[in-house]
Amino acid sequence: MTVDRLELSAELAGDGARAGSADVAEYAMWLGDDALILAQQLGGWIARAPELEEDVALGNIALDLLGHARSLLHYAGSFDGRSEDDLAYWRDEPEFRCAWLFEQPNGDFAQTIARQLAASVFQFELYTALQASSDETLAAIAAKAVKEVDYHRDHAVQWTLRLAGGTEESRERMLRAVADVWPYVDELFRDEPLIDRLEGVAVRPSSLRAPFDAVIGAVFAEAGIETPAGFVSSGSGRRGSHSPTLGYVLAELQVLARRHPGASW
Amino acid sequence: MTVDRLELSAELAGDGARAGSADVAEYAMWLGDDALILAQQLGGWIARAPELEEDVALGNIALDLLGHARSLLHYAGSFDGRSEDDLAYWRDEPEFRCAWLFEQPNGDFAQTIARQLAASVFQFELYTALQASSDETLAAIAAKAVKEVDYHRDHAVQWTLRLAGGTEESRERMLRAVADVWPYVDELFRDEPLIDRLEGVAVRPSSLRAPFDAVIGAVFAEAGIETPAGFVSSGSGRRGSHSPTLGYVLAELQVLARRHPGASW
Repeated sequence: MTVDRLELSAELAGDGARAGSADVAEYAMWLGDDALILAQQLGGWIARAPELEEDVALGNIALDLLGHARSLLHYAGSFDGRSEDDLAYWRDEPEFRCAWLFEQPNGDFAQTIARQLAASVFQFELYTALQASSDETLAAIAAKAVKEVDYHRDHAVQWTLRLAGGTEESRERMLRAVADVWPYVDELFRDEPLIDRLEGVAVRPSSLRAPFDAVIGAVFAEAGIETPAGFVSSGSGRRGSHSPTLGYVLAELQVLARRHPGASW
Repeated sequence: MTVDRLELSAELAGDGARAGSADVAEYAMWLGDDALILAQQLGGWIARAPELEEDVALGNIALDLLGHARSLLHYAGSFDGRSEDDLAYWRDEPEFRCAWLFEQPNGDFAQTIARQLAASVFQFELYTALQASSDETLAAIAAKAVKEVDYHRDHAVQWTLRLAGGTEESRERMLRAVADVWPYVDELFRDEPLIDRLEGVAVRPSSLRAPFDAVIGAVFAEAGIETPAGFVSSGSGRRGSHSPTLGYVLAELQVLARRHPGASW
């Protein structure tokens, strides 16, 4: 069972393919960094969640995201001969392309769930559309990832309803969490110049806003949560300007690899 | 794929069965605590291992161990009506029954691997023998766990050889790691009075020493590692006396559940 899981996790969707341009590599880096940074944040929950069963769930989600990150960063690095490990461990903060939402700290359990809700609904719509990309590797990675993200979305939705409809305290925490996380949602849908250069290859972020709002609207309606008023996020992670948290996340992520450059492991 | 994984992880081997005596429950607690504490330590590696692929491997191993811990603690708690979460989050340090080996800190990657080598070889021999237990639930849990631990063992053996045969630094670290971890091995094979009261149900720890030494001897021979001279460990985790690390591990494990007693999550 584990071996199967490992073989599946170890398998890189689109292995062997080379990104056709620096723009394609940059776009793959956007999505790969989103998944990598969120995976590391979620890893912090292993054996710390409010239920043992939940540890397993969040751990599995983190491992799915790491798998997506590996495939996307492997493809991004293929353009100039870097490995996914080169990209994960040897880039400095301004070279990362994750959106601020994915960098946000775990906070309490409700905040992690609010972050998961926004992230998984966004990624589900994104990967669904990316399956039609004219770039076969991105389409293949998306086709594999969307099945897993579909589960991540269900998980986040179920917990959002459970917390919002639970005790007075859990509801209050869920409402506060949504208020804390939502300012980072706007950035996800911003069309950068890169997108104009990748017509048919990349998914236009602004095109995902309507389906995202429809799903979130339905969830919030059922949970009795008012959708926070629109924000214009100051984040511009796609350009390498990041929230204060990312520095700490990268320190943790990179410390070992950097302490032993070229170690035979 | 994730959903399958989750269903499998969420499934509790031996669910519904009730431990027949306080001794059986105590024995299940020994093994469950070993797995729980090791799982949490390994969780610390998620997105911090020297390779992204390795993050996924260690993460999967941690989740396997959490699954074993849930099944064993669920069974342990069934005797007096406590849930696996009650046992994980609401016992204090002296009530835990893990051996000191499982409590040892991650240290550097080589130390984690040395701990994994000793732990997985021990657990493999233990669960192999436990499949013949007259307690059907323990036998069922062991039958499920041994398949996964078999992979954990392969993983630890491969890394031990890779580090010992790698660069000068990796070899030196592996040798130091074995020297640091081995003093905690002796405790694993100590026969406590409880074992005498569970003839045919529990596996006699001392009976596992020879097969353990045989496997480790072969690995160390291939790796060119000298087996550390025998130690008599001062640890007595089975009686609730633990190494200094466990306090920190439990603080992390229990902080959330204890901050929100009876929270609806």
